[in-house]
Amino acid sequence: MADKDSGIVVLGLDPGSRVTGYGIVREVSGQVTLVAEGTVRTPVKKSMATRLGVIFTELAQLIEEHAPAEAAIENVFVSKNVMSALKLGQARGAAMSACASSGLDVAEYEPTYVKKNLVGVGNAPKSQVAYMVAHTLGIRNPGWAEDASDALAVAICHLNERRLRKLTGGV
Amino acid sequence: MADKDSGIVVLGLDPGSRVTGYGIVREVSGQVTLVAEGTVRTPVKKSMATRLGVIFTELAQLIEEHAPAEAAIENVFVSKNVMSALKLGQARGAAMSACASSGLDVAEYEPTYVKKNLVGVGNAPKSQVAYMVAHTLGIRNPGWAEDASDALAVAICHLNERRLRKLTGGV
Repeated sequence: MADKDSGIVVLGLDPGSRVTGYGIVREVSGQVTLVAEGTVRTPVKKSMATRLGVIFTELAQLIEEHAPAEAAIENVFVSKNVMSALKLGQARGAAMSACASSGLDVAEYEPTYVKKNLVGVGNAPKSQVAYMVAHTLGIRNPGWAEDASDALAVAICHLNERRLRKLTGGV
Repeated sequence: MADKDSGIVVLGLDPGSRVTGYGIVREVSGQVTLVAEGTVRTPVKKSMATRLGVIFTELAQLIEEHAPAEAAIENVFVSKNVMSALKLGQARGAAMSACASSGLDVAEYEPTYVKKNLVGVGNAPKSQVAYMVAHTLGIRNPGWAEDASDALAVAICHLNERRLRKLTGGV
């Protein structure tokens, strides 16, 4: 809560059973900077438990290293089919467990809400969201993986939300 | 692997976002006994991350306490809809992460396979499976929760499979 001194560090997540994107950002006095971003890739030929273990362990290490105070993830309501929803759910379960087991709650945002928050419109194309993420962090042509950029987007959305709640006395 | 001395302890899981059943069994010289069974109930009014954290933490504690050597879970291919598949997946992801983070791999079995393994037919009613679980463990009128009984069923199925693989030189 000591925002003025050390700022607030937020972890954004974009989980998937093959690739999980993460993005860690810090806000100090309204200035948002990049702490870390990247992807966790699971060994596709291994058992599902092993793959989920990789997601859990790598995210738990990131959380230990960067000590985010809050985390955020996109809500999902649609999926190609039941099987892909189940797989996506499992990856989300591993990622959210890594947060929860470190005492980190995870705020959930609808995808259209994240787009509206960053770009101004809920049906903005992904490229515009990616542009706004890079712009907010002051980085030109970042070349981030799409999943990492999406994770950064939800982290920045959470920071914006947090700032707004604070201004309106909600925090 | 020192089966003759201490036996083998197996954890069976039946995850759900509201109720997760678990069953821990031990086999020593072909004799299967009950170690522990029960359910993890999540606080329905809390955030999904908090609920998944409860599943993860309670299962991790059980694994630490009883030190199973192997774990088993039923595969799922059907679900009411995409949303329930996603929720179920998240619970499975938390449960499998608890196993994986303790170095425990999780064998997956199809529901019809578990029924056939225990009762002899793949479309056996749940009551018959529950009866065979209690019979195998030598317990009359156990009064277990359905989710705990289902978890014990997949644990016993795994022990049977394991014994068979051993006889045929597969282990």
